[in-house]
Amino acid sequence: MTEPRYALHIANKNYSSWSLRPWLLMRELGIGFDEHLAPFSPGSNWDEFRRFSPTGKVPCLVDGGTVVWDSLAITEYLAERHAGVWPTDAAARAWARCAAAEMHSGFGELRNQCTMNCGIRVRLHAISPALQKDLSRIDELWNQGLDRFGGPFLAGEKFSAVDAFYGPVAFRVQTYALALSPAAQAYADRLLALPAMRDWYTAGLAETWREADHEAEARSVGVWLQDLRAV
Amino acid sequence: MTEPRYALHIANKNYSSWSLRPWLLMRELGIGFDEHLAPFSPGSNWDEFRRFSPTGKVPCLVDGGTVVWDSLAITEYLAERHAGVWPTDAAARAWARCAAAEMHSGFGELRNQCTMNCGIRVRLHAISPALQKDLSRIDELWNQGLDRFGGPFLAGEKFSAVDAFYGPVAFRVQTYALALSPAAQAYADRLLALPAMRDWYTAGLAETWREADHEAEARSVGVWLQDLRAV
Repeated sequence: MTEPRYALHIANKNYSSWSLRPWLLMRELGIGFDEHLAPFSPGSNWDEFRRFSPTGKVPCLVDGGTVVWDSLAITEYLAERHAGVWPTDAAARAWARCAAAEMHSGFGELRNQCTMNCGIRVRLHAISPALQKDLSRIDELWNQGLDRFGGPFLAGEKFSAVDAFYGPVAFRVQTYALALSPAAQAYADRLLALPAMRDWYTAGLAETWREADHEAEARSVGVWLQDLRAV
Repeated sequence: MTEPRYALHIANKNYSSWSLRPWLLMRELGIGFDEHLAPFSPGSNWDEFRRFSPTGKVPCLVDGGTVVWDSLAITEYLAERHAGVWPTDAAARAWARCAAAEMHSGFGELRNQCTMNCGIRVRLHAISPALQKDLSRIDELWNQGLDRFGGPFLAGEKFSAVDAFYGPVAFRVQTYALALSPAAQAYADRLLALPAMRDWYTAGLAETWREADHEAEARSVGVWLQDLRAV
C-alpha cells in the first residue's frame, strides 16, 4: 500500500511564479506530491482552471478531500503536517512569516514589470522609481535576514518557506539582470543553485508552450538578449 | 505588575482597511493591545511610517523586541499565542486560511475601485466586469463558507481571523451599496453589527483628517450621496 500523496496543480514552469513557491518548498523539504501541470492558454484560464481550483488560479494543493487554493495557505497547511516548513526559532519564524506575507501581498511593480519568464534574458529599457523601490526593499529585506539569522538562507541555516517565496525573484534577477548588493546577489545565486530550482528551470526551458500575454509583457519592458527555450 | 501588552500601529480608521483586520481580530478575541494611530498625510507616508514599520506600511504589531509587519503574519503570530484565531477543526481551518490569504493577495479591483471610506455613501457610476468578477467571487466564497460550516461566521459558529479579513469588505458593501446575494448581505450586516466593528466605525466617523488621495479615489468612482463624518 502506498501512502496517499498530495496533488499539486501548477501552470507553466517558465511563467508561473505563484506555482513555483509551494513546488519548491515541497521538493526541497522532500514532501512527496503528484504534479498536475495545466499550461496557460491565450486569454483567461478561469474556466479551465476552475475545474480544479476555486479561484481559477494556481497553485492549488489537493489532499484527499481537502482543497487548499492559495500559496500561503498551502504553506501553513503543510507546516501543520511536516517539519521544517518554518524555522523552529520563534523570532526567526515570525520574521520569515512577515517576509513571505510581504511578498504574497506586495512587490506589485516587480511582479508587473518583470514578469517571471525563466528562459529569456532581457535588458530593461529603464528602472522606474517604483520598480527601484521594490528592488531596494527586497535587497534590504534579504540583507536583514541574512545578517540577523546568519545565512545561508533568509531565516538561518536551513531552507524554509520564506526562501520558497523568494524563489521567483531569483529567476527575475537572472532574466532581467536586476542589480542587487553583493550579499543579495549571492543569495539569489544560492537559490538558483538549489537542486529543485535547477530542475524547475530545466523543465521550464524545455516547455514549448508560448502564451501571448506573458510573451508580450516581457517584450514590452526591454530588449531581448537571449531566448534559451526549446523551439 | 501589569502584563506587557502588544502595540498595534494602525492608520486612519476611516480609510485603513489593512489596519482594521488585526485590530478587529484582537478586539473580538479580547487580546489586549495599545493602539498607536498615525494618520495618513498627503503624498507618501513612507518616511514617517518607516519609524515603526519596516515596510513603511500599517498594520504593524510590536511585541517587546519582535516586530511583525504584515496583517497575515500578525494573525499567525497571534495564533501561536492565543486560542480562537483560527477554527479548531482542521478542515475549517484550512478553508479559513485559504479565504484569508485569497483576500491578502487578491481582489485588486474591489480594493482599487472601492477604497475603504467608512463614513461616506457613494452611488458607483458603473460596475466594471472586473469589479463584478471580484464581487461574484466574494459572494460565492461567503456562501460556500456559510453553507459548509453552518454560520453565522464564515468558518462556523465562532468569529475567527477569516472574518476579520473580510471586515473591510463589509464597510465597502455599506459605502458603495454593493449588490450581494441575501445570505452574503446578511453576513455583511452581521459583521457590521459586531461590537468591535461598531467601535471602529464610530471612531472613523469622528476623525477629522482628510487625506487628498483617498478622498479623490472615492470621488472618482461615483456620486457621493452622504458624508456622515465629523467636520
